[in-house]
Amino acid sequence: MNIAIIGCGDVGRCYAAALSQAGHQITGVCDSNPGRGLEAYANEIGALLHSSSGPWLAQVDLVISAVFGGVALDVARQSLPDMRKGAIYADFTTGNPGDLRASGELAAAAGVKYADVAITGAIGLGGARTPLLCAGDAADELIEIMRAVGAPSRKVGAAAGDAVALKLLRSVFTKGLEALAVECLMAAEQRGLRQELYEVLSDIDQSPIRSFMETVVTTHVRHAGRRLKEVQEARAQLRQDGIQPLALDGVMALFERTSGSIAADPLLEEPTIQNSLDWLFEQQKNNS
Amino acid sequence: MNIAIIGCGDVGRCYAAALSQAGHQITGVCDSNPGRGLEAYANEIGALLHSSSGPWLAQVDLVISAVFGGVALDVARQSLPDMRKGAIYADFTTGNPGDLRASGELAAAAGVKYADVAITGAIGLGGARTPLLCAGDAADELIEIMRAVGAPSRKVGAAAGDAVALKLLRSVFTKGLEALAVECLMAAEQRGLRQELYEVLSDIDQSPIRSFMETVVTTHVRHAGRRLKEVQEARAQLRQDGIQPLALDGVMALFERTSGSIAADPLLEEPTIQNSLDWLFEQQKNNS
Repeated sequence: MNIAIIGCGDVGRCYAAALSQAGHQITGVCDSNPGRGLEAYANEIGALLHSSSGPWLAQVDLVISAVFGGVALDVARQSLPDMRKGAIYADFTTGNPGDLRASGELAAAAGVKYADVAITGAIGLGGARTPLLCAGDAADELIEIMRAVGAPSRKVGAAAGDAVALKLLRSVFTKGLEALAVECLMAAEQRGLRQELYEVLSDIDQSPIRSFMETVVTTHVRHAGRRLKEVQEARAQLRQDGIQPLALDGVMALFERTSGSIAADPLLEEPTIQNSLDWLFEQQKNNS
Repeated sequence: MNIAIIGCGDVGRCYAAALSQAGHQITGVCDSNPGRGLEAYANEIGALLHSSSGPWLAQVDLVISAVFGGVALDVARQSLPDMRKGAIYADFTTGNPGDLRASGELAAAAGVKYADVAITGAIGLGGARTPLLCAGDAADELIEIMRAVGAPSRKVGAAAGDAVALKLLRSVFTKGLEALAVECLMAAEQRGLRQELYEVLSDIDQSPIRSFMETVVTTHVRHAGRRLKEVQEARAQLRQDGIQPLALDGVMALFERTSGSIAADPLLEEPTIQNSLDWLFEQQKNNS
């Protein structure tokens, strides 16, 4: 396959190398601000170096955009008209989901197949083996290509933009867990209870994350008030031990909000995940 | 065993009933503000009703304190002198760890065995089968008694107060997860991606919570800056979708703080869980 890489930072170079090693031809690399290093790199992989998109894109079967997210849509808008119909434009940027959806629509209008690709990990650590999420009409084809270079790739969502949207939703949870782990392990270490905390938390391992999340949300809408007291006590203990909680302050604010909503307008039915979420949306509307 | 219950709210009554059914004799119940209902209840279980501690406590082998946490230490101070040496004082309150440790020391001075007991769940849902954490020199004996009435009970920590301290540390994590689940599932539902989010998060099920926590903390001290950008993007997406994040704001504040610390005073060694926590403590000291 003839491939062009637009944007030659860490991401662009990582996939250029992996695809090249897998037998694909990197025919062109493009960077708006190419330095000496990039020139040498292009030579090394037998690619022509460009500083902008142009008719040279007509020769390629796959364009990989790895520019900064902020210019994802601009780059797509400039590049798509030069591509041949039926080729694939794969957007590896962390552009916002709206821009990527718009890019997908431009691609469709230009007869180009499109995939938005979210890299769910650090390229610097996992290289081309970092897991990918793909959405858009070229998702299946792109997944086949990327799996062949060792990237665990999964199709998600219905439309272009869904992959990056899911990546960010995943981030809410995983980065939240990270922040909680920092505060929690600091506080446990301070009391000499870190090993015991692991044991006391190990029951979390017993239930899949999906049922855990649904259980806590359906009980949150009933018991946020009582649980708020526990959060307040936990926060008091951390502060007393000299830990300055930040993540926990956000957690407490959420419990306070739900607790107020329960007092003003309780959910009267038996909570299910669906009516719990509906109630939370309704409360948010009332509060805004 | 002859047992006294001090504080006859939901917790006191729950364990009075369970212990009574298991063949123990509840010889006395004590509440500073006993109502008609409590009088009937005491009759029903064959217990004498008291409005304060006193010499009647000398007859019992086990005192269960289930008063409000704020008066835990006062009640222990009043009750211990009346108890016989070698009896057990079990503190089921959610008093703060310092008060419970002080109670344990008073008990030791009075020749009474002491356990602090943390109820890690809702009595209203699980009744006497709610899991318990126990610390203090009477922990082993109390665990035997409580297991016999169906309560999964576990010894934790080294000193009185450690059980409730661990319960609150556990709360930091579990209530944090709850808040994150609320925001995350609302945001996913809003985009019609809830089912797919579960799948994208399911890799979390693959690693035990202990190694997950240690991994994110040891990478946090290196990568908080890059990850902060992802948190900011995730937050922007939520707000754009009409979700008002609160927990995520706290998470972002923590990433901002660590990110600033990394810029000013990076951890130069290869991060381990120990030097990562040490570095985090050091940074907190510098910032305070």
